[in-house]
Amino acid sequence: MFFNISRYLGRFKLVGCVVRNFLILLVGLVFSVNALANPNLGLPPLNIPADNPQTAEKIALGKRLFNDKHFSADGTISCASCHQEDKAFTDGLPVAVGINGQAGTRNTPTLINAAFFETLFLDGRASSLEAQVLGPMLNPIEHGLQDQQVIVDLIRQDRSYTEAFRKAFAIKVDEINISHVTKAIASFERTLISGDSLFDRHLFGRDHTALSSSAERGLTIFKNKGNCVTCHEISWNNALFTDNRFYNIGVGFKQLTPVLDKFIAFVRQGNNPDYFPLTAVQRSELGRFNVTKNLADIGKFKTPTLRNIALTAPYMHDGSMKTLEEVIDHYDIGGDQNRFIDSKIFPLHLTTQEKQDLVAFMQALTSSKSPNHPTGE
Amino acid sequence: MFFNISRYLGRFKLVGCVVRNFLILLVGLVFSVNALANPNLGLPPLNIPADNPQTAEKIALGKRLFNDKHFSADGTISCASCHQEDKAFTDGLPVAVGINGQAGTRNTPTLINAAFFETLFLDGRASSLEAQVLGPMLNPIEHGLQDQQVIVDLIRQDRSYTEAFRKAFAIKVDEINISHVTKAIASFERTLISGDSLFDRHLFGRDHTALSSSAERGLTIFKNKGNCVTCHEISWNNALFTDNRFYNIGVGFKQLTPVLDKFIAFVRQGNNPDYFPLTAVQRSELGRFNVTKNLADIGKFKTPTLRNIALTAPYMHDGSMKTLEEVIDHYDIGGDQNRFIDSKIFPLHLTTQEKQDLVAFMQALTSSKSPNHPTGE
Repeated sequence: MFFNISRYLGRFKLVGCVVRNFLILLVGLVFSVNALANPNLGLPPLNIPADNPQTAEKIALGKRLFNDKHFSADGTISCASCHQEDKAFTDGLPVAVGINGQAGTRNTPTLINAAFFETLFLDGRASSLEAQVLGPMLNPIEHGLQDQQVIVDLIRQDRSYTEAFRKAFAIKVDEINISHVTKAIASFERTLISGDSLFDRHLFGRDHTALSSSAERGLTIFKNKGNCVTCHEISWNNALFTDNRFYNIGVGFKQLTPVLDKFIAFVRQGNNPDYFPLTAVQRSELGRFNVTKNLADIGKFKTPTLRNIALTAPYMHDGSMKTLEEVIDHYDIGGDQNRFIDSKIFPLHLTTQEKQDLVAFMQALTSSKSPNHPTGE
Repeated sequence: MFFNISRYLGRFKLVGCVVRNFLILLVGLVFSVNALANPNLGLPPLNIPADNPQTAEKIALGKRLFNDKHFSADGTISCASCHQEDKAFTDGLPVAVGINGQAGTRNTPTLINAAFFETLFLDGRASSLEAQVLGPMLNPIEHGLQDQQVIVDLIRQDRSYTEAFRKAFAIKVDEINISHVTKAIASFERTLISGDSLFDRHLFGRDHTALSSSAERGLTIFKNKGNCVTCHEISWNNALFTDNRFYNIGVGFKQLTPVLDKFIAFVRQGNNPDYFPLTAVQRSELGRFNVTKNLADIGKFKTPTLRNIALTAPYMHDGSMKTLEEVIDHYDIGGDQNRFIDSKIFPLHLTTQEKQDLVAFMQALTSSKSPNHPTGE
């Protein structure tokens, strides 16, 4: 079409030439603006559940629920308390803090790109965003609500909420139930998508000026000597930086060491592991085991995404490391050894320069769409 | 108990001493014989389907069916034709050969420890041994049977078979159906289990004399510099040497290169990939894509186990490599590059000694129970 018009305009010689050049420039501009404006660059297609399509009304309602502190036992905690937008939807704390200032046992995971994960929570105990929502709401340390009916009751008593639910789901007040709440919040969470980091522009956008030389060397170390990509996956046409699997990487495990042999013997005898006396921290450190009850899963946690990692300190499932440098040092020495540690963790013998390059690479994983992006895009 | 008896016998001085030493020797022997006699050393517990429990009658029947050439269009092929016991249930050929001397497109995978795999076939298209059985039977190049009814008819006409089915399943002639056939063969396959290699005695049996120094160095390279363990997994209490996942490792992919761009465009337009013109070899090289129809899975094949690997040459899904040395060289150069190759494949820069050590390690993965074990155990 463009070429046909251009050929037609060519009849007008000089005028035609100017117009043709203008059109070529225009097409070039449209393409380059498109390249810059693709927030999904480097991300796979998003799967939306068939029974919960994205609508503007539902997303707006979900955002309101997400930010509302009324849905907590003492009126101080909303989802946004721990998932703060300016910290890539984390809270800057080692472990999450809920009602009455109570501290939990695990670091708040980012919600950025959670829409792509196969399972939610650090131990993967929920298999959809919808299924995840109620976990923190009903957790006695987090929102501390007695049961899910409290949430429905609070909503039914609030005229502006009932109006918003009517608009979002075409339902009357007495038809509102908990699944509408979880669907709305999940729909909002499904908008927290962000690719288009400098890394994405480099690898998927083929912009070879996007990464600094240090970051580019860091990418090579990430894929080769550092062995990072084994779990923090990069695919040929997208990168989630997680394989959605669970590993014992030698963090926090020493909490379990004093009771480990007795615990294993207890479980092997066919006893219910819930009846073995453990502290809250020890119970938490069982990790994936709490979901599968498989001894091989003791101390395993889900590979977290590394997108926006520069914004989500402190690090690790227990928030025990303040900086990316500390994290790299942990992997460099082959983790804190324990008999359950994954065989993929081993001493790396990285040089100081290689460690710096890895940090530079990780800093290039901050998405431009993120509100806290250093370049302010 | 032992110590009590010993203390009691101690009263008899010299006689007691002799008896005590004899008892100590006896206990030692019992323990070492036990260690030698555990064919499952290094393997996880086996899951038997609830609707197909293992029985001696069923296993014997399965073994007979497995070895019977009647179940092929020209009467020359049984399961055992390609899965030969003395080659760790492979056939020594680059690609499988079926009826009328026809060659297939893929290397025969071992059946050793297939009972532990999450999926069967190199592209994982079957999710149980029972579901796998009929694949080769009905494949026009392999057994070449028209349909599954042929198998049932052949069995119903054979008095000794109908008697064996009656014993195994407590059924009459006209009740025999194809699921009894697949259950019996799967039950036999589920007995082809073999751990207790020198590697297992070293790592899980804590016998530090089991591995040669070269093999022991090879294990370290396998876990660290060689990055092998990333896919060929070793867990803390067992080792299947597979993660049951699918990877493009840069083998055979060049078969697809000439048609790749057109094929991808065709699929992206929403067309049925089966309608795109491809040779049988090209179709085969699509690998996991044939199962998932996901473009990201083009050229991916399942991580094979490495147990008994010294007995299963030639190697790779297309049987294109004759020796373990060739396989190591392939990984050492970072595979045959293609745009779909997995980011876990990269140049390793192994020394000659390190390559030899890796081979020594892989030779230590031959299970003692295997009939072709070099030590003749």
